[in-house]
Amino acid sequence: MNTEATPLLARRRQALGASYRLFYEEPFAPVRGEGVWLYDQHGTPHLDAYNNVASIGHCHPAVVQAIAEQSALLNTHTRYLHPSIVDYAEDLLSEFPQPLNNLTMTCTGSEANDLALRVAQCVTGGTGMLVTRWAYHGVSNLLAQLSPSLATGLPTASHVRLIDAPDTYRGNTFVESVTAALEDLRAHGIRPAALLTDSIFSSDGVFTPSRGELAQAAQRVRAAGGLYIADEVQAGFGRTGAHRWGFQRDSVIPDLVTLGKPMGNGHPVAGVVGRAELFDAFGHQQRYFNTYGGNPVSCKAAQAVLDVLRQEDLQANAQRVGEYLRQGLHDLAARHPAIGDVRGQGLFIGVELIDSPATRLPATALASHVVNGMRRRQVLISATGPRSNVLKIRPPLVFTREHADLLLEQLSATLAELP
Amino acid sequence: MNTEATPLLARRRQALGASYRLFYEEPFAPVRGEGVWLYDQHGTPHLDAYNNVASIGHCHPAVVQAIAEQSALLNTHTRYLHPSIVDYAEDLLSEFPQPLNNLTMTCTGSEANDLALRVAQCVTGGTGMLVTRWAYHGVSNLLAQLSPSLATGLPTASHVRLIDAPDTYRGNTFVESVTAALEDLRAHGIRPAALLTDSIFSSDGVFTPSRGELAQAAQRVRAAGGLYIADEVQAGFGRTGAHRWGFQRDSVIPDLVTLGKPMGNGHPVAGVVGRAELFDAFGHQQRYFNTYGGNPVSCKAAQAVLDVLRQEDLQANAQRVGEYLRQGLHDLAARHPAIGDVRGQGLFIGVELIDSPATRLPATALASHVVNGMRRRQVLISATGPRSNVLKIRPPLVFTREHADLLLEQLSATLAELP
Repeated sequence: MNTEATPLLARRRQALGASYRLFYEEPFAPVRGEGVWLYDQHGTPHLDAYNNVASIGHCHPAVVQAIAEQSALLNTHTRYLHPSIVDYAEDLLSEFPQPLNNLTMTCTGSEANDLALRVAQCVTGGTGMLVTRWAYHGVSNLLAQLSPSLATGLPTASHVRLIDAPDTYRGNTFVESVTAALEDLRAHGIRPAALLTDSIFSSDGVFTPSRGELAQAAQRVRAAGGLYIADEVQAGFGRTGAHRWGFQRDSVIPDLVTLGKPMGNGHPVAGVVGRAELFDAFGHQQRYFNTYGGNPVSCKAAQAVLDVLRQEDLQANAQRVGEYLRQGLHDLAARHPAIGDVRGQGLFIGVELIDSPATRLPATALASHVVNGMRRRQVLISATGPRSNVLKIRPPLVFTREHADLLLEQLSATLAELP
Repeated sequence: MNTEATPLLARRRQALGASYRLFYEEPFAPVRGEGVWLYDQHGTPHLDAYNNVASIGHCHPAVVQAIAEQSALLNTHTRYLHPSIVDYAEDLLSEFPQPLNNLTMTCTGSEANDLALRVAQCVTGGTGMLVTRWAYHGVSNLLAQLSPSLATGLPTASHVRLIDAPDTYRGNTFVESVTAALEDLRAHGIRPAALLTDSIFSSDGVFTPSRGELAQAAQRVRAAGGLYIADEVQAGFGRTGAHRWGFQRDSVIPDLVTLGKPMGNGHPVAGVVGRAELFDAFGHQQRYFNTYGGNPVSCKAAQAVLDVLRQEDLQANAQRVGEYLRQGLHDLAARHPAIGDVRGQGLFIGVELIDSPATRLPATALASHVVNGMRRRQVLISATGPRSNVLKIRPPLVFTREHADLLLEQLSATLAELP
């Protein structure tokens, strides 16, 4: 334990309570961020290969300036007329295929997913919801029921069905599982409202199925009367390299798309994109007013992020550097049998650690050693999946080959020194 | 209709959909804010007597500077150790009576109320919830079920009971109503989780009962096994003048208190304050991680608001100017029989408009005329209550007597010119 941090830790425990957790055996306490670097109080740089929120790089000056300028000028709400939300909505929607032509803004990805499900319930008249077995979709009361990864043993509501993630390593039964879940809902007299999936299946262990699974699943849920909602909070905004949105990997257009984390590079802004008739059906039935959602400051921050994403061509960088990094990880895997699988797309990468290639048993403790070992070597990553044995590598999109080399070097050293 | 706004309105309708609404027959389009003033594109100042979010004044330089500086330095999350959230939590909690000694931060008041209800369900094992008949508590799926004011005819869930607001004008049956609702829950075999009330009963029509009603209601819900949650999103942070928090009007300490709107003067920050053992029981059962909640920028913004609130003694100002404004409104009422009641506390004031003193029928159309007439006279107010006939006057807390005089003058002129 870092002794300097001890008094602050104790005060934190006193004031914040038990639901607050910290990363790493030795908690990290950054004081400054820039690009892919987080600096501690001694000025020691740590390579950030974890934070997908600061997607265009920590403290990007374009976002900082946009926030500072608009905060000094005006910060109100969407019941007054202001061009910022209209300009941003039009620009953002130009990044989506037709008929996704409408935006509702919220403050968090949780609020976006929660709203999308309210819209789905309203327009379908159904309540049934399908999510993956180790999904995470947010923190609201409804979303906690749809986020089994929050805690084992949390009760699952009677309208929820858990489906298999498209596990490309151990066996992909995703589409069959959707079919079975829809059949089970039918047998119980529950009309489906929506299939909600994270397009990169992050909490399930990072999967990017490529045989049209999402399209097939969407087709089946629609045939049963439900909507397909793509949770792009993690996969969106160019993260997967090949596409702006994760669902574009497949030849499928969702009914609703939820956005969050990188949308404001850390400023709390999020939203739902979808077909106008869905929002209209919902909006004619009830008001939806999000006090801070779509305020001028949030819109200017989000616009700056979108501008930088294009100007710096960060999606192409994610594709290029992600490819390079995965190649390096495959090379490492050839020397380390504990690396069972290297997967992902763009700069969202999963590295599954296993006991042995024969058993493929999840190496949970090993993953924890690696994550904490990397942290001691000043490289920040995490672990994910139902058994927390999949290294989660998800840096800001300004990550370069040099940063990838540094990560690979430190990972190699960490693996070499393991017990 | 302001013809300059027409093209933007059309684009807005196209991109944003039907759940977005605008205030006023002639929508207002501010471009700049300062103190109690909002300026349109022609530089015409409008007196803001509506916005309780920009509580310490629009674009307060202390908040703008805090946001700009911290955004340029570091914006991460609560899984790294950072003093900003601990410093703020300690300082905020010093404003609460014991045993309210714990804070969990969210981004919006909706997230705060939703979380408080999750905690209540977890610790009580109950699901029953009591809210007032025309309550508004937020936009999540759960909160929409607890916000009848969002739409008439929205289905009320089977675990929800609607209680009478403490209507100090037409008849206050609040406590009896709580008792009956608890009895009805018991009869249906539903254990109560919480009584959730807005401490200023804003959407119900602005009520500040003063005969210990909240304490009595809290006592009854606790005796039945539920918690008392004070929704201070609107009443908190000195708004009611006499106290920092609305519940302090009564000799009662809630189990959980939710905060929002003015907490960051427009920056999306909110939270739940409560007894540590409640958060601990919840936190030991499941994770709660709000990506943007409690980030360093939000904490610095919230700290700046708290500092200004103290330095400028805005609570005392709310008390003083609120008193003065209510006196002026009473004087107006003496000349205008359409003003049936003047109520509220500090700078949260309700002015109930009626058909005639004999019938006390709600004058909904009249209220709309007044609100729109005031807007044409460059004073911004709104209307609330089940029949939208209660003028809602709720300016930034930097409102002075001169501003109150201007409001009274324009209200007098507006009432004089009514058909």
